[in-house]
Amino acid sequence: MTAASAGPGAVRPGGRTARVRAAVLRAAGDALAEGGLAGLDLADVARRAEVGRTTVYRRWGSPANLVADLLADMAEQSLPRTETGTLAGDLRANARLVQRTLADARQGALFKAMIAAATCDEQAAAALHRFYDTRVTEWEPCARQAVARGELPEGTDTREVIRAVSAPLYYRLLTTGEPLDEAAADRAADAAVAAAKAGVFVTAQP
Amino acid sequence: MTAASAGPGAVRPGGRTARVRAAVLRAAGDALAEGGLAGLDLADVARRAEVGRTTVYRRWGSPANLVADLLADMAEQSLPRTETGTLAGDLRANARLVQRTLADARQGALFKAMIAAATCDEQAAAALHRFYDTRVTEWEPCARQAVARGELPEGTDTREVIRAVSAPLYYRLLTTGEPLDEAAADRAADAAVAAAKAGVFVTAQP
Repeated sequence: MTAASAGPGAVRPGGRTARVRAAVLRAAGDALAEGGLAGLDLADVARRAEVGRTTVYRRWGSPANLVADLLADMAEQSLPRTETGTLAGDLRANARLVQRTLADARQGALFKAMIAAATCDEQAAAALHRFYDTRVTEWEPCARQAVARGELPEGTDTREVIRAVSAPLYYRLLTTGEPLDEAAADRAADAAVAAAKAGVFVTAQP
Repeated sequence: MTAASAGPGAVRPGGRTARVRAAVLRAAGDALAEGGLAGLDLADVARRAEVGRTTVYRRWGSPANLVADLLADMAEQSLPRTETGTLAGDLRANARLVQRTLADARQGALFKAMIAAATCDEQAAAALHRFYDTRVTEWEPCARQAVARGELPEGTDTREVIRAVSAPLYYRLLTTGEPLDEAAADRAADAAVAAAKAGVFVTAQP
């Protein structure tokens, strides 16, 4: 459910333009989750979103533009980080969030489709990089605070700690047929903590 | 260069059938690296391979079949593991091999295309899973020997140790625009070693 479809009280700010964007991006996400980038057609998205075809063509113009805008919207709407007071707790919360997202049928299919789109389209790739950059920036303070608390060594590349949490979950999603369960999430978080505490992510020039 | 194109002395066993397969798979890999799955066309592959179009249609039938056979061939041809005598040495050798492969322009593009193909085709996905399964099976003894030497705790999931080495490199390839350098490879290996030594990959039932 988008905010726009939940009723007037829940409408995102911005009025009609914002509602059209929300409906179109929701429809684009559905189409991507169902058929991948190959299944993303502007006329079909307009029909699903119940928005004029001309509006969609004029505002987005291409499937790649739609993917880029969807990723920008997902970055804007994505959840704030959790603060538990310990690095292990924070990174487990992060890992569980990534795991739930990727294990969800629609969201998992959507992320696979967006990653696939990024392998063959420069614009989708740039939008995907920005999306992950935003997510790392949101969670990076967990690692920075761990350095301040003395849990991690000085000079730790704190962004790399956050990336280390997600990496095994995405690798599992893309290269094995194995389920993404909570045990995999906790293991990913614990592995990142162990490596970070061992100083693996300390850079020569902090 | 395939073995078949290097001259009669280097021809793979199997005669004409094997030479046709090698030429077709080389051409399919080139096409995939250049244009992704969308750019993989059986007639084009036949032309590039200088093989009859009927042969290609009869033997492979679809782009997904070509991707699956290419992955099977890559698993057969892939390099044996390195044995250095220490877990850290073995995993750094593994990480450097993965990093060199993904950082190579043709191979990196090829892997991206095959991962993208696997997101939208069941058969390509099954072949991709088998490819990574073969690679993990090849390198898993490095971790098993480390358990035997007392470097890692009993009950360690040794396949998961090997996957942990590759994960950050694939994650970097797919979600950031950052280069895959040797420092990233060494960090991936060292992180896997630190996590494994800390017991993160110990399963309840070994």
